[in-house]
Amino acid sequence: DAIDRVIGGLEKKNKIISKEEKEVIAYHEAGHAICGWFLEHAYPLLKVTIVPRGTAALGYAQYTPKEQYLYTIEQLTDQMCMTLGGRAAEQIFFGKISTGASNDLQQITRMAYSMVTTYGMNDKIGNISFYDPSQENAFQKPFSEETGKIIDEEVRKMIDAAYRRTLDLLTLKKAEVEKLAKELLDKEVLHKSDVEALIGRRPYEEEKVVSLETEEKTAEQKTSEVSETSEDSEASVTSETTANSSFDASQNPTTT
Amino acid sequence: DAIDRVIGGLEKKNKIISKEEKEVIAYHEAGHAICGWFLEHAYPLLKVTIVPRGTAALGYAQYTPKEQYLYTIEQLTDQMCMTLGGRAAEQIFFGKISTGASNDLQQITRMAYSMVTTYGMNDKIGNISFYDPSQENAFQKPFSEETGKIIDEEVRKMIDAAYRRTLDLLTLKKAEVEKLAKELLDKEVLHKSDVEALIGRRPYEEEKVVSLETEEKTAEQKTSEVSETSEDSEASVTSETTANSSFDASQNPTTT
Amino acid sequence: DAIDRVIGGLEKKNKIISKEEKEVIAYHEAGHAICGWFLEHAYPLLKVTIVPRGTAALGYAQYTPKEQYLYTIEQLTDQMCMTLGGRAAEQIFFGKISTGASNDLQQITRMAYSMVTTYGMNDKIGNISFYDPSQENAFQKPFSEETGKIIDEEVRKMIDAAYRRTLDLLTLKKAEVEKLAKELLDKEVLHKSDVEALIGRRPYEEEKVVSLETEEKTAEQKTSEVSETSEDSEASVTSETTANSSFDASQNPTTT
Amino acid sequence: DAIDRVIGGLEKKNKIISKEEKEVIAYHEAGHAICGWFLEHAYPLLKVTIVPRGTAALGYAQYTPKEQYLYTIEQLTDQMCMTLGGRAAEQIFFGKISTGASNDLQQITRMAYSMVTTYGMNDKIGNISFYDPSQENAFQKPFSEETGKIIDEEVRKMIDAAYRRTLDLLTLKKAEVEKLAKELLDKEVLHKSDVEALIGRRPYEEEKVVSLETEEKTAEQKTSEVSETSEDSEASVTSETTANSSFDASQNPTTT
Amino acid sequence: DAIDRVIGGLEKKNKIISKEEKEVIAYHEAGHAICGWFLEHAYPLLKVTIVPRGTAALGYAQYTPKEQYLYTIEQLTDQMCMTLGGRAAEQIFFGKISTGASNDLQQITRMAYSMVTTYGMNDKIGNISFYDPSQENAFQKPFSEETGKIIDEEVRKMIDAAYRRTLDLLTLKKAEVEKLAKELLDKEVLHKSDVEALIGRRPYEEEKVVSLETEEKTAEQKTSEVSETSEDSEASVTSETTANSSFDASQNPTTT
Amino acid sequence: DAIDRVIGGLEKKNKIISKEEKEVIAYHEAGHAICGWFLEHAYPLLKVTIVPRGTAALGYAQYTPKEQYLYTIEQLTDQMCMTLGGRAAEQIFFGKISTGASNDLQQITRMAYSMVTTYGMNDKIGNISFYDPSQENAFQKPFSEETGKIIDEEVRKMIDAAYRRTLDLLTLKKAEVEKLAKELLDKEVLHKSDVEALIGRRPYEEEKVVSLETEEKTAEQKTSEVSETSEDSEASVTSETTANSSFDASQNPTTT
Repeated sequence: DAIDRVIGGLEKKNKIISKEEKEVIAYHEAGHAICGWFLEHAYPLLKVTIVPRGTAALGYAQYTPKEQYLYTIEQLTDQMCMTLGGRAAEQIFFGKISTGASNDLQQITRMAYSMVTTYGMNDKIGNISFYDPSQENAFQKPFSEETGKIIDEEVRKMIDAAYRRTLDLLTLKKAEVEKLAKELLDKEVLHKSDVEALIGRRPYEEEKVVSLETEEKTAEQKTSEVSETSEDSEASVTSETTANSSFDASQNPTTT
Repeated sequence: DAIDRVIGGLEKKNKIISKEEKEVIAYHEAGHAICGWFLEHAYPLLKVTIVPRGTAALGYAQYTPKEQYLYTIEQLTDQMCMTLGGRAAEQIFFGKISTGASNDLQQITRMAYSMVTTYGMNDKIGNISFYDPSQENAFQKPFSEETGKIIDEEVRKMIDAAYRRTLDLLTLKKAEVEKLAKELLDKEVLHKSDVEALIGRRPYEEEKVVSLETEEKTAEQKTSEVSETSEDSEASVTSETTANSSFDASQNPTTT
Repeated sequence: DAIDRVIGGLEKKNKIISKEEKEVIAYHEAGHAICGWFLEHAYPLLKVTIVPRGTAALGYAQYTPKEQYLYTIEQLTDQMCMTLGGRAAEQIFFGKISTGASNDLQQITRMAYSMVTTYGMNDKIGNISFYDPSQENAFQKPFSEETGKIIDEEVRKMIDAAYRRTLDLLTLKKAEVEKLAKELLDKEVLHKSDVEALIGRRPYEEEKVVSLETEEKTAEQKTSEVSETSEDSEASVTSETTANSSFDASQNPTTT
Repeated sequence: DAIDRVIGGLEKKNKIISKEEKEVIAYHEAGHAICGWFLEHAYPLLKVTIVPRGTAALGYAQYTPKEQYLYTIEQLTDQMCMTLGGRAAEQIFFGKISTGASNDLQQITRMAYSMVTTYGMNDKIGNISFYDPSQENAFQKPFSEETGKIIDEEVRKMIDAAYRRTLDLLTLKKAEVEKLAKELLDKEVLHKSDVEALIGRRPYEEEKVVSLETEEKTAEQKTSEVSETSEDSEASVTSETTANSSFDASQNPTTT
Repeated sequence: DAIDRVIGGLEKKNKIISKEEKEVIAYHEAGHAICGWFLEHAYPLLKVTIVPRGTAALGYAQYTPKEQYLYTIEQLTDQMCMTLGGRAAEQIFFGKISTGASNDLQQITRMAYSMVTTYGMNDKIGNISFYDPSQENAFQKPFSEETGKIIDEEVRKMIDAAYRRTLDLLTLKKAEVEKLAKELLDKEVLHKSDVEALIGRRPYEEEKVVSLETEEKTAEQKTSEVSETSEDSEASVTSETTANSSFDASQNPTTT
Repeated sequence: DAIDRVIGGLEKKNKIISKEEKEVIAYHEAGHAICGWFLEHAYPLLKVTIVPRGTAALGYAQYTPKEQYLYTIEQLTDQMCMTLGGRAAEQIFFGKISTGASNDLQQITRMAYSMVTTYGMNDKIGNISFYDPSQENAFQKPFSEETGKIIDEEVRKMIDAAYRRTLDLLTLKKAEVEKLAKELLDKEVLHKSDVEALIGRRPYEEEKVVSLETEEKTAEQKTSEVSETSEDSEASVTSETTANSSFDASQNPTTT
């Protein structure tokens, strides 16, 4: 709640976003989209937009996730990089980072901790799962302080490596990010076909597991989010699941 | 609950499992089955299947446990290896591990911690049992942070040793795992007699303590699970107890 | 609550502020105002006053924040320096610091911890956000003691650096602080135009995002504060948001 | 509750104990009985049996405790060794230990911690009693982590020494343990007189404080246990108190 | 509550104080009074007495605090020294300290912790305030164990320095303390004018902020205390605030 | 509550105490009495007895405490030594210690911790009082783990020094302890005059603060205990307060 108070201030119903911020948002979203495009295990892009949505999102990228039950380290790492793509783009194009990635960081933090403490995907912690459904609200951590220290260190290493990989990828694809960001600033919404037109087809074959509604139509559907604040009730009646990576509008952390 | 959110996303009533995932599941279950087959103190296999069950299990191996009251370190270690057999098979055949072993890891973690902190089966901790029925919901650990550190280290060593032993066993029995996995992909369900036909009789004499219903019939019975989500209410009226090792269908940890 | 008791004593309805204290308050507020004036990313000053307000504030500076959604490290650091400007002015002009900055310090502490633990703005902690909306009232910190130690150290470094920068700035602008403080002691309230008349225009172009009500009128409006004790209910119906930095009247910490 | 789940599985009303387990139980109980016979401060044996009792005990040894109010370190150590006699016998005769000693270990753990933290019987901790009747449910340990570490270490040393002493005693009395165990497997219940007939009179004079009911009759009485699950309500109306050391039937820790 | 029990025993309605204790009380109160007299930032003395009051105070010194809103480190340190003056006098005149200073120590402890953790008045902790009105009843400290260690060390240093300074001052003013103590033993109550008559005027000019009621009258008023056990309800309707430093009557910590 | 279970077993209404235990009790009580006799600041002895009382006390020594409000380190240390006198006598005369001192140890522990954490009577911790009436049930210790470690160490040193001093005193007065113990075994109850007849008058002048009822009568009065289980309701209506040091009858810690 430290944050609640820091990002207090008045809520504006009609967001007036400055030109400078619009530009940051466009590159941030383009970063997500380009990462997803060039990482094999990321979900195929459906739509990317810089039109603000609801009270928090300033923009978002929407994906069509695969019908998938098992996740390897490689797949989870690709997802982490895609989620870090927004901040990495800000870093590369503006040389500075903003509070806008805070929701992305929450997701990456949860994923990394789950990999280390629940899925046995870290060598130092090993084939252990500290997840215990009956101990959700325990007053004590199920491990020692020393183990907690190792977990934190391994998570930091994992996220640092993912961020460096993301920076490398987007540096390599800087031209594509820029093309996409500029088009976004111009059109505000881009569908997968628009992206293909701009930078060519995605290099990975997409499995045809999803049903065959048109992309346009799907893009119109509300997206399914992991976030608790999702208002997307009809998402559950569609056979396509869409994931998105929204851009977080931190409200005025400086109104001290 | 970090995991709950990470593995959020939409629940599909009719699981559509991709060919790649089916293959991973088959080798994972074959890994469990072959471990149980060649480890003296593991329970005799009843059935192994890759037909998904309920909302979480993508496949499972079912065993007929012995009527047993006392467990030695050797017996518990064999059970741990059998439970690690799924992940070990994924490692050996695909060179990468998946989230599918998370339920297995929860069981192994509980067993290893019990051996060290409850059953006095670790040299460093010694003949101590920190289990206190009247202190179930205590706000404090019954031992110091330093002791907690030793416990964690000993548990990690124990599980690491069990995993290496499992990898060694399945590497030795790679041909048998492959045979079983391929047959599973073909038939989807294999009973003990099918396994015997494929790879020969289990090298250990099974005690005839269990009553003599036919295996087919037993295999049809619902299984008794340790898991809290077990819906197997009629299990308690049968004289045979069956144990199984299900394959966990983590749902979409990447819908970030 | 240690403080509650320490700063107990009787509450005076009509504050009788000694000449010595008035002088400290004037330089403290002038410190805030001059920092905001010469730091690019601080909000433009609206009004600064040493007329006590309510039960706690002995004086305050009021700002017109920009309509802003994203905050960079540079912007947040400027805000921190502006908030530290009061204490820094006391240090420079009186050679000693007082309890009057305690509310400022609470704000700076929250900002710095948020930057490190929520916004991924610290190199040692990295792109991690420990903020979890569903874990607000957790009994346990979401990180290890070792990580907690790093966080505390990084926050201390961040705040120390900001304070040194603030001292440097106000030492450079000592003449301006003095001019403003003396005018404040004379007039008690100064508007932006008064400040401009005294020390010249603010060196940074202010964006014209805000609506065009007169400053006078805005200055009359109640201010929107982050503080929980804000009584500014009508603030939410105006399109201008004003921020202020009040001077905390610690009540008698010595009535032991 | 980790254990609860680990030792889950179905409860069998009519215990069917295998020949191998019966043998382990007999040597375990003989270990308790022989320790009590040759340790001066242990209580005199009343009865030893391998007939299972209730839901948990697979066998037990029953003693006639003295009417006693004060306990020296020597007396408490003898009791600890007697309680460790079951596991020590398993170790000596089978070369491996089982989960059957878990209840014994809980008792030893409580005794050792009480000696160190309540009765001032440890040199490093000294004449301190951390026991505070009014702080039973405290949220905090009454000592520092460093003191907790010392307590844990001293308890481990104390129990390790007691176990080595027990192993030494039973190795010396191996023939007697074997004689008793074999007779137990044959007769299932042995009274004090039977033991005397087998291995001679107990070397320590027993005080005639207890009233003079016949042993047979006493042996038929239900025993008074420390365990909370004791159902022995009529025990409180007899003038003899009997203590026993039951053999714990852990239920299937491997039904993973 | 350890103390509650230690200082249990029967409460005497009519305190019978031994000659030896009366002497200790007189020097203790004289210590407070002389410190306040010769420390610039301490409040001016109103009255000092060794007539016991209520159930706990064996004597007290009463002050007229200034109308003050801001406190510098120098001012708070003077107050700490004045509060330590009682124990320092016992040390100097009797060569031993008593339980009578326990209430003084509670106040000093709170002041020192507030200076370090709330008012940013310690170099090592820096311009940080861990005070958060919304986190009063938090289950966790807002800082790491390492920071807690630094805070404790800094508080100890601060209090040690204040005590040494107090010992130095009272050693220098030993004659004055003795004069005052002897007069107190003789007269039991001394007003400011009595003290002036004995040792001369206070060397610091007192500001005339307070209203001009006669001292006699003020001295008759009940005092406003920080202590929670204050029964001084009419204090809030007077324009003078009086502070006092009472002498704590620990009741029989030896009735073991 | 570990102890509760350890010292469980059946409660005997009519205590039958063995000759060996009676002897230990007599020397234990004589140890208390002789310490109190020869330590200047201990309370004057009223009565000492080895007749068991209530459910817990096997014997006790009763004192007439002085009307006292202030306690110096010297006085508190004398009380600690007197309370340790029982265990020290067991050590000296029997070469071993028993559980009978557990209540004594609880009192000493509370006194020592109060001296260090509440009364500022330890050099390393200094003039600090962590006692805060409003924080009785706090979830957190008011100090860091490092400070907790220092407190524990200082308490251990303090108690160790007091125990060594007690051993020295009773070794010097071994003949007197023996005389008193033998007389106690013979007479069971000894009043102050009996003790004077045996070993001469107490070397310290007793102040005549207490009222002049006869000792016999006072000795008949119920005693005022610190212990929570005191049933002495009429104690509060007498003008004499009596303190006693009872001998704790731990019930059967070996009924494992």
